[in-house]
Amino acid sequence: MYQELTPKNSTSKPVSKAVINRLPRYYRYLRDLLSKDILRISSEELSSLMNVTASQIRQDLNCFGGFGQQGYGYNVKYLYGKISDILGANEGYRAVIIGAGNLGRALATSSTFPNRGVFVKAMFDIHPDIVGTEIAGLHVYDISELQKYVENSVVDIAVLVVPNSQAKKVADLVFSLGIKGIWNFTGYELHSVGNIAVQNVHMGDLLMTLCYQVRSLNLPESERKSEETEE
Amino acid sequence: MYQELTPKNSTSKPVSKAVINRLPRYYRYLRDLLSKDILRISSEELSSLMNVTASQIRQDLNCFGGFGQQGYGYNVKYLYGKISDILGANEGYRAVIIGAGNLGRALATSSTFPNRGVFVKAMFDIHPDIVGTEIAGLHVYDISELQKYVENSVVDIAVLVVPNSQAKKVADLVFSLGIKGIWNFTGYELHSVGNIAVQNVHMGDLLMTLCYQVRSLNLPESERKSEETEE
Repeated sequence: MYQELTPKNSTSKPVSKAVINRLPRYYRYLRDLLSKDILRISSEELSSLMNVTASQIRQDLNCFGGFGQQGYGYNVKYLYGKISDILGANEGYRAVIIGAGNLGRALATSSTFPNRGVFVKAMFDIHPDIVGTEIAGLHVYDISELQKYVENSVVDIAVLVVPNSQAKKVADLVFSLGIKGIWNFTGYELHSVGNIAVQNVHMGDLLMTLCYQVRSLNLPESERKSEETEE
Repeated sequence: MYQELTPKNSTSKPVSKAVINRLPRYYRYLRDLLSKDILRISSEELSSLMNVTASQIRQDLNCFGGFGQQGYGYNVKYLYGKISDILGANEGYRAVIIGAGNLGRALATSSTFPNRGVFVKAMFDIHPDIVGTEIAGLHVYDISELQKYVENSVVDIAVLVVPNSQAKKVADLVFSLGIKGIWNFTGYELHSVGNIAVQNVHMGDLLMTLCYQVRSLNLPESERKSEETEE
């Protein structure tokens, strides 16, 4: 029955980068709804759940050609599938984690990858006492074996969790091996160039933004606005 | 000598939220320059380093009243101090980490907090075999001791790294204790309301954005653009 909800305006407006950046959040909420067997939701309900305006939701989701129908709401399953496709969540990407320190281990054991359909296949490190062991069922190879590994297996994404001092060297190696996606947790910032996609995660930047927000709350009400205009 | 570089236009334009969000990145680059004893930099040099246009840099940094001077460049130390102040990096905020699993441990041992002038003072967990131990020099308390701890110590920031199933309960507790800043690593999204500042980190959202970028690279050149306009 849901197939009847085909978009009326299939020659819709282009999907902007801003919308693309918001899609993972829709994906997360839709997955949550599905897990609760909620198959239909109005933009108003989704709005109050996600704390964004219903008009923003309609604007975002109608970009794909209007899945919603007046008085009927959105088909959660269809929308979830569509967003999955757009984001590449069903591509079965294969990842390796480079760096088996605390954060590398935490990522290896987290549900982040399987929840997004990404398969972590191996880990790499340089420390002789870690190389050869298993972490969360993943074999830890010596970094010198990366080239051979990439030649024999498809690797779409490399997750960099090495110390800053090693970051450039490892990034150069990963680039040279033709791995297309880099999820970079090192402090050494990488840029998306040419045929390489980079997602830098700067924990410290996020912490500073939080500090700024806390500081704003601590200011007297009268100063909060002037703070914005202070030179 | 640098003090002479006081802004000419000290009644400058208000600092927008977009600029505020970019400041941590400037902070990071300026800190790196300082560590290399580079005390002066032109917007062109900073531009090529940070991979943003020099005009964007001038626009961003002149918000604070124009630290740069034609043919002289920016005073790195002054700018770093100013951005630190704006972001609240010198406030000496005190944090606790709630959840001593893999990610909690990784955060406890990372340089993220000390590098931003935030002091992590304690950890909290519920597992009897972890409670009472020390991680990276931090005592792990039982979560039931949080209220007493907050009554006796200043806690500005709570870092939530508990399982999703516990997230709401722990967040409610943290809210009720009047902790103003929440750095939330759980999948349970929290909203900044009233006198509380929240920074949600959704690792999965970041991974999906990377998957999207990788998928775009894998598309034939001819399809990359139409992808943007596809319904």
